[in-house]
Amino acid sequence: MEHYRSLFIDFLTAIPKKKTPIGLYAPIAYIMELGGKRIRPVLTLMATDAYQGKLDQSLPAALAVELFHNFTLMHDDIMDEAPLRRGQETVHEKWDLNTGILSGDALLVQAYQALEAYPSELHSKLTRLLSQTALEVCEGQQYDIDFEQQKQTTIVAYLEMIRLKTAVLVGCALKMGAYIAGREEEEAQKIYDFGIALGMAFQIQDDYLDAFGDPKSFGKQLGGDIIENKKTILYHKALHLGTEEQKKELEQWFESKGDIKAEEKIEAVKQLFIATTAAEASQELMQNYTQQAFKLLEVLRVNEQGEKVLRTFANQLMQRQS
Amino acid sequence: MEHYRSLFIDFLTAIPKKKTPIGLYAPIAYIMELGGKRIRPVLTLMATDAYQGKLDQSLPAALAVELFHNFTLMHDDIMDEAPLRRGQETVHEKWDLNTGILSGDALLVQAYQALEAYPSELHSKLTRLLSQTALEVCEGQQYDIDFEQQKQTTIVAYLEMIRLKTAVLVGCALKMGAYIAGREEEEAQKIYDFGIALGMAFQIQDDYLDAFGDPKSFGKQLGGDIIENKKTILYHKALHLGTEEQKKELEQWFESKGDIKAEEKIEAVKQLFIATTAAEASQELMQNYTQQAFKLLEVLRVNEQGEKVLRTFANQLMQRQS
Repeated sequence: MEHYRSLFIDFLTAIPKKKTPIGLYAPIAYIMELGGKRIRPVLTLMATDAYQGKLDQSLPAALAVELFHNFTLMHDDIMDEAPLRRGQETVHEKWDLNTGILSGDALLVQAYQALEAYPSELHSKLTRLLSQTALEVCEGQQYDIDFEQQKQTTIVAYLEMIRLKTAVLVGCALKMGAYIAGREEEEAQKIYDFGIALGMAFQIQDDYLDAFGDPKSFGKQLGGDIIENKKTILYHKALHLGTEEQKKELEQWFESKGDIKAEEKIEAVKQLFIATTAAEASQELMQNYTQQAFKLLEVLRVNEQGEKVLRTFANQLMQRQS
Repeated sequence: MEHYRSLFIDFLTAIPKKKTPIGLYAPIAYIMELGGKRIRPVLTLMATDAYQGKLDQSLPAALAVELFHNFTLMHDDIMDEAPLRRGQETVHEKWDLNTGILSGDALLVQAYQALEAYPSELHSKLTRLLSQTALEVCEGQQYDIDFEQQKQTTIVAYLEMIRLKTAVLVGCALKMGAYIAGREEEEAQKIYDFGIALGMAFQIQDDYLDAFGDPKSFGKQLGGDIIENKKTILYHKALHLGTEEQKKELEQWFESKGDIKAEEKIEAVKQLFIATTAAEASQELMQNYTQQAFKLLEVLRVNEQGEKVLRTFANQLMQRQS
């Protein structure tokens, strides 16, 4: 795992970076250097390796995926009015709104440009996949915004939202890796589907950890989603599984804003998530997606070592505490 | 001319459009239907035709160029806090900031997707050109923002800013048309250079018309740039050509905001533009670029009819009153 990550980081550090106008490119350098787990580019490298492709040929696509991911972070942080990202000021806070918009736009273009390292046919294929993924991620973000304004939402709609907003980029990262190793569409689509299941499990675990993660290792404030009344999988499961009384109580907490003591609200809502068995049900759903991912992994025509690496990586992702 | 425009509009009207999520796609349909002169897609069609390529094969690239242009309008309107676009509410006014950002992002992706109509090699070539252009347009927008905050600016820096912000997309539109007609890089680069000169002339004329256009045919409020203290070519020429006293007077007007009567300010600044001969010098510079464009046009290996059409189009652009 660490091997792929450091390969990617070495590549990221070594590539020449545009510098001027500084107002455009300094925020790009800033967000790219904030770090993060680099999960998506690592997946691209893993997929290429598992399909016995050349790792160094996989690096530009891994870069495209990471640039694209950071573009979404820069624009999402504006939309969410987030002050912090990975413990540091967000771009629109450190600079301003216009910088967040414009540097984000440039990041998206640079994601496309990273794919120019490939010969025409592969370049064309990878670009199509990036565009399809990018548009779906925009759709997912829109559904997420719509969600927060709707009174009634369903688990089905929630799952479709996280598929678009999160899972398709995981699928894309892996599929690019397969393309680079020269695999045909049918096989590439299989590792994409594995990525979708993995991405779904990842996001559900993310929702769960936001409430129930280990406060020591969790990077941000626990309970952030509860404070912001985010309609996570825990919320949906609680409404689905709770008694009328519990539902009413949960909805009341979710109508409250600001003036309530944060600690009290977090504790009460967490107790409701446990009492309604929503916490348990969310973990089960996460495990279902993980199992589904492992089933899909079995039919992939990757080498033995590759299967092992992908399985270990998936397990680590799901067992994480932050 | 009208022939190309109506060909493009028929194509634009006929293509299937994504509808859901409506919050994402309705603003895209809205801005695309606001109209405008459709100069850039018309140039793509003209170039293909002049190089004896197939017009219907040029339509997807023309669409890509127009989608990209509208993406820049949507995001620029946010950055400029513009309430109106073509006499109608801007997207972030009619909807909200987040909609302007997210629908703009989706528009950029759709511009890339329009190019998927082409076979791999051409798709790859057109995508590279779109990305290069897109990044340069972002750089131009950044220089424009920087400009408004700098005390001292130069004509050279101003010209480089409008080259990036405006002219490269005109060049790109034409070059795409040449690629589609199967022309080699060397020839395609020549029509690109013609486009740069044309785009420079176009933007300088735009600056001029904002102050001195015909109030009857000019779509928006005359003198808008003066009210917003925009550092246009007129401003730079006036500082370059004026006496110390005139410069001082101009700078004083450009430090004033809001509390001044708009009409009075516009009139005074226009008088300064005339008295310093900045108005005249700007027209001369515009004509220089137009002449340069015509010279470049002469060496293009386009057919006779094509050369005539491009020349007429350029003349009409420069003689416009709005």
